[in-house]
Amino acid sequence: MNKNPIGIFDSGIGGLTVVKEVRKILPKEDIIYLGDTARLPYGTKSIEAIIQFSTENAQFLISRGAKFIVIACYSSSSVALDILQKRFSVPIIGVIKPGAKRALALTKTGRIGVIGTTLTIYSGAYEKAFKELNAQCEILGRACPLFVPIVEEGWLDHPATELIAETYLKPLKEDGIDALLLGCTHFPMLIGVIRKIMGDINYVDASQEVGLELAQELEKLSIENPHGNGNIYIYLTDLSMNFKEISERFLGEPIKNVSRVALAN
Amino acid sequence: MNKNPIGIFDSGIGGLTVVKEVRKILPKEDIIYLGDTARLPYGTKSIEAIIQFSTENAQFLISRGAKFIVIACYSSSSVALDILQKRFSVPIIGVIKPGAKRALALTKTGRIGVIGTTLTIYSGAYEKAFKELNAQCEILGRACPLFVPIVEEGWLDHPATELIAETYLKPLKEDGIDALLLGCTHFPMLIGVIRKIMGDINYVDASQEVGLELAQELEKLSIENPHGNGNIYIYLTDLSMNFKEISERFLGEPIKNVSRVALAN
Repeated sequence: MNKNPIGIFDSGIGGLTVVKEVRKILPKEDIIYLGDTARLPYGTKSIEAIIQFSTENAQFLISRGAKFIVIACYSSSSVALDILQKRFSVPIIGVIKPGAKRALALTKTGRIGVIGTTLTIYSGAYEKAFKELNAQCEILGRACPLFVPIVEEGWLDHPATELIAETYLKPLKEDGIDALLLGCTHFPMLIGVIRKIMGDINYVDASQEVGLELAQELEKLSIENPHGNGNIYIYLTDLSMNFKEISERFLGEPIKNVSRVALAN
Repeated sequence: MNKNPIGIFDSGIGGLTVVKEVRKILPKEDIIYLGDTARLPYGTKSIEAIIQFSTENAQFLISRGAKFIVIACYSSSSVALDILQKRFSVPIIGVIKPGAKRALALTKTGRIGVIGTTLTIYSGAYEKAFKELNAQCEILGRACPLFVPIVEEGWLDHPATELIAETYLKPLKEDGIDALLLGCTHFPMLIGVIRKIMGDINYVDASQEVGLELAQELEKLSIENPHGNGNIYIYLTDLSMNFKEISERFLGEPIKNVSRVALAN
């Protein structure tokens, strides 16, 4: 047993969907969440920048006593996970591999689509994850950068959203995939419009899988805290005008305990 | 005369349109350009964050010998110009007032529309600028946050772009404005689709006005450099995958002399 909190970070507040799923499975654990809202988005920036930002985020969570770190950001998980695991002694998991495992469990044809930010798709992180799982499958990736600002604008069923989704998803539809990995924290919010185009295939949101994997790891390492208070402490590097409203949309419960924090460069 | 360079900063590379216009009017001046690509966009972040980022940007340009600073970013000009002018002894101008002057010169009905990022519109900077100009006019503002990622995706005439523009611009169209201020570096790229909706009214891109104002100020202060080499030195806080292609689209000429720089926090 270990009463220290679980640390979770993301480029912004989308990672609160991971917090939401973790709380369903581990309601007694305390959680510190860090959203790097001053520098978001990560998905359009360089690999070097994301590695640097992610290192600073992990350092902050460790300085606050995190016993385990979850990288809730797909872009950061894609390019920084290995490096952070080597650099820090605290155990760290990302969102790529749990999602890949789930997609493999669901696919029948072995044709799996992956959508994400430009960085996530071009990093080849999913191909690497499927290879490490010894998967015999075909991976079809597609960058959908406009999905992030569309969700932040709240246009979940605007006609423009449908046109944008059609442009991005048409090649995957034509390739006949039977499982689609939603490889960005914001994308599950667009499941309605995505389903309209892609039809009745299998959709994978890694948030739930990450919660399950985290629970297994905590037990394996004997660092779970089954009698804690279940507090959430949220730190953001910037508090924008409507962060509370959007945060609560992702977390699914009222937000308390929010602090602004500056990360050392 | 002063052989030192002119310093120009923006949240990203959109401000290179200002560099392009300045070069037309002042071809012999050396220019140092700083794009804070690691932290872009500014338009969705908090006022405090933009003031902090802008201060760091100005400090960098001054440390490189800038004799004059142009804030090419509309969000930064909206909330940080006064503060930077008070803090630094180097003369500084922004993009808000020059655009407002031009719109006033063009309007006949006195009904002026302004589009920009969420921060620019909600800051009230344009209302303040028109008031300082003693203008008898009605200002109608509209935040168009999706225009920025749409331009960065290069979807200048995608059907989705038209739908997005229709949603944003319809209220301005109905209000019967006769001049529209394009209050963000990225928006002139969308003039085709904007004109389709708004019709044959007056459009104001402040970039040209800023070039003219800068030339006047340099002359007034006797710090112009009519016999320089016209070099451009570009510094970016992050080099993303396709920065060169997008930069050249904004600057309108090939990019040389690009360096990555880290700003002290």
